Amino acid sequence: MRHRAEAYFKALQASLCSQFESLDGKAKFKKDAWSHTEGGGGITCILERGAIIEKAGVAFSSVRAALTETMASRLGVQPQPVLAWFGGGTDLTPSYLFEEDVRHYHGRLKNICDRHNPGWYPLFKKECDEYFFIKHRGETRGVGGIFFDYRREDPEQFFLFVQNIGNDFPASYLPIVEQRRHEPWGERERTWQCIRRGRYAEFNLVYDRGTLFGLETGGRTESILMSLPPEAAWVYDHRPDTGSREEALELVLRHPREWA
Amino acid sequence: MRHRAEAYFKALQASLCSQFESLDGKAKFKKDAWSHTEGGGGITCILERGAIIEKAGVAFSSVRAALTETMASRLGVQPQPVLAWFGGGTDLTPSYLFEEDVRHYHGRLKNICDRHNPGWYPLFKKECDEYFFIKHRGETRGVGGIFFDYRREDPEQFFLFVQNIGNDFPASYLPIVEQRRHEPWGERERTWQCIRRGRYAEFNLVYDRGTLFGLETGGRTESILMSLPPEAAWVYDHRPDTGSREEALELVLRHPREWA
Repeated sequence: MRHRAEAYFKALQASLCSQFESLDGKAKFKKDAWSHTEGGGGITCILERGAIIEKAGVAFSSVRAALTETMASRLGVQPQPVLAWFGGGTDLTPSYLFEEDVRHYHGRLKNICDRHNPGWYPLFKKECDEYFFIKHRGETRGVGGIFFDYRREDPEQFFLFVQNIGNDFPASYLPIVEQRRHEPWGERERTWQCIRRGRYAEFNLVYDRGTLFGLETGGRTESILMSLPPEAAWVYDHRPDTGSREEALELVLRHPREWA
Repeated sequence: MRHRAEAYFKALQASLCSQFESLDGKAKFKKDAWSHTEGGGGITCILERGAIIEKAGVAFSSVRAALTETMASRLGVQPQPVLAWFGGGTDLTPSYLFEEDVRHYHGRLKNICDRHNPGWYPLFKKECDEYFFIKHRGETRGVGGIFFDYRREDPEQFFLFVQNIGNDFPASYLPIVEQRRHEPWGERERTWQCIRRGRYAEFNLVYDRGTLFGLETGGRTESILMSLPPEAAWVYDHRPDTGSREEALELVLRHPREWA
């Protein structure tokens, strides 16, 4: 299973990179292969300063390490002699809300979930909203998707599910970029985007289990932090104008909705 | 003592704000008074988009709250029926290294420390380098200063010391701004400054005890995060050129030096 999973994720990574390159039409991914001191390693692919894409990261890693008590407590699991679980997810973090995009994205996720287990979409959607919650802001990081962790299903069946989700990612995400790439924007939209990215950085540095686990266990810093924004901003006590498009997003982040 | 300390810090805050306003010559501080649900409160002063100063924050707060075990463990102290200690510090986080500025800054700190206790400067300087260490980067946040916490000295004597440090801040910091405000800079320097600010955000969000303590105990988010940079950047695997001025700073951050 481990070898098949590695092979699948490596192939998915290569496929995603080439699709993002085609979409952008200008920039190419920089590929960094690295190895971990305790065994295993990964390939970190980053595209920066493209024609449409400011930054994209597609990472693969496969690290085997003894699970210490500290690591287990950070992950919130009990150390066990043999520990294997599936965890993952996919979610959307836009700066502006286009409701049809969110419905399209969630709708595709629900379809795939439903084919495997009709209980999964509502469960994983809720787990996503709960996981990506920035407590000190009282808001989620984005408009959600699905998130699952420590799943103990039959590995073969769950691996199939994960592959179906992975394979569908281009069809669920790329049309949104195609649809919105010509939206006009100016200084106001850029400032708001950078403020939202500041919130993204806050979530990833304060709460994200993967980030904190990686940093604490001496993982490769550049790979762990590769999703931090190319530019972010903090403006003291910034509040969107009443009735503005910025406020429309914030309302959804404060009160997650059903999309599918 | 509490009342005298509050009075002193409020007066220092007002004095620092007016000195920063004079220095900048354009922008004014926005003053936010707030109160904490559990008692106490503060005044947060922020100056943004000035002529020389992009962002300055001068905060005062006085919060009394029962110390829970979680809070105590975050602060690294044992809960005690009566808990009182002095903690604080002052340090410099430049984007470029001007050695004479760092010597001037540390020299003034050493002078004040020496008048109180010749052991303090070396001790507090070391504590500063250790506290502001970004483990996952293998570097300090800045070029240091002094940092002290959980000091159990005679409160009257230590309060005098703290006042001497506070009163000297304008003389130790403002001349550096006057000296460097006309340094030429362009896109290269701005990018580097934003990358350094990204590291500042990493430290404050991942490690800073005050930040994490404040967020976990439901403090006022905007006040806790007011020192986050107006703009920050992350560039994948950025490394300064050999022999460059950027590398000169990084070398000092990786190997803290003696400055006084």
